[in-house]
Amino acid sequence: MARRLKLIVAYDGGGFSGWQSQANRNGVQDHVEAAFQRITDSAVRVHGSGRTDAGVHALGQCAHVDLAAGRLTAEQWNAALNSILPPTIRVLRARFVSRDFHARFSAKGKVYRYRIWTGRVLPPFEVGRAWHIPAALDVDLMRDATTLFVGTHDFRGFTANRGKPPTNTTRTLRSVLLRTAANSVVIDLDGDGFLYKMVRMLVGAAGQCGTGKISISQIAARLSGRPSDMAPLVAPAQGLILQRVRY
Amino acid sequence: MARRLKLIVAYDGGGFSGWQSQANRNGVQDHVEAAFQRITDSAVRVHGSGRTDAGVHALGQCAHVDLAAGRLTAEQWNAALNSILPPTIRVLRARFVSRDFHARFSAKGKVYRYRIWTGRVLPPFEVGRAWHIPAALDVDLMRDATTLFVGTHDFRGFTANRGKPPTNTTRTLRSVLLRTAANSVVIDLDGDGFLYKMVRMLVGAAGQCGTGKISISQIAARLSGRPSDMAPLVAPAQGLILQRVRY
Repeated sequence: MARRLKLIVAYDGGGFSGWQSQANRNGVQDHVEAAFQRITDSAVRVHGSGRTDAGVHALGQCAHVDLAAGRLTAEQWNAALNSILPPTIRVLRARFVSRDFHARFSAKGKVYRYRIWTGRVLPPFEVGRAWHIPAALDVDLMRDATTLFVGTHDFRGFTANRGKPPTNTTRTLRSVLLRTAANSVVIDLDGDGFLYKMVRMLVGAAGQCGTGKISISQIAARLSGRPSDMAPLVAPAQGLILQRVRY
Repeated sequence: MARRLKLIVAYDGGGFSGWQSQANRNGVQDHVEAAFQRITDSAVRVHGSGRTDAGVHALGQCAHVDLAAGRLTAEQWNAALNSILPPTIRVLRARFVSRDFHARFSAKGKVYRYRIWTGRVLPPFEVGRAWHIPAALDVDLMRDATTLFVGTHDFRGFTANRGKPPTNTTRTLRSVLLRTAANSVVIDLDGDGFLYKMVRMLVGAAGQCGTGKISISQIAARLSGRPSDMAPLVAPAQGLILQRVRY
């Protein structure tokens, strides 16, 4: 009797080609599948909650895998996987779950964090982990911009095409919280789902607003589908972290 | 008339062969000298406050360099160097100083930080930036151990030989502060000078004390030059950060 194992996975996206399996076998999914294969000596398919782009980090990506009956406990799977995986990919938790659970289809929402570094110099420890905007950002204006995004909207103006466009581009954001720390701005976004590159385009718009390049009304127009001459900006992958998946 | 420029330099030690110039030209000093050479088109010698080992980080290494008269301001030097240096080496500040100032000989002391990660799993963002001890450390005992080091002692039992041993192995630590945070222990050491690998051997002893491998009295004996059967441990370079140099 096969058992379904749920994993919480963290990774530093810097060294990988995103979550999804790639021809170069350097997707995070590829590394996790290779670790399972090394232990089980058979091909194992890992199902993630969704993609993350190359360079995007995760503190709480979720995945599941179906395993043939075996004697390892979930804790033993956790330790065995970590002993094989690169140190910048870590299984934080593993537990057996009902076969009703599906990492992608059972997901009720996701929480992302985006980090902007505003100091003049990007410190070495922040390389690959923040968007560097060395400017005095208008944080109040940025907060107004992010507040626009809360609620249910058609976000077709804040997604990039990836082959065929999705049929339904309406999504609901439960909250978008912006706070400032020393030399940085942190934006937490909690939503029922996100379109391709949507978080990075929302943050890109907020950032452009903070530097005075675009206005709140331009963002509002684009969000409501009215004509808007704002040139959308995709914020760098490096600042984005998938914090957790809600089930 | 040559002018002396003082630099505060931060680096992520992970990608470099330590501070000091190396045959492979991958010391941090090599990179800073190469940046000056690219700007001035002549060989420039950079004088650091002292070495850091391969893998050790710096938030406030200090260096000076003598430059032929030129028109660049200190701020322009700062920006020009950062435009050439790898992103994991950053000049945080630059200013012209008196020729009496010497990065090494004017130093009155140094402040180091050492980070230990005690959680079961080392998070991807901590890779290369902490010593992973996945155990319940006896923090009170570790604090007692670090308290032993404060003051003036002959630290010959807590240094590694690098060719000829130094003639004077007495150093003074102004303070050693240990604090705990979520899943981590942070030790700040402030001293007038440190022998080769001394910080890492002091932290190594404290770590061994925290896991119960050695006792406080073994450390005290070694520190006072009495016979001690403790096997000295050099804590990993990755957890060490040169915070600042005092002048």
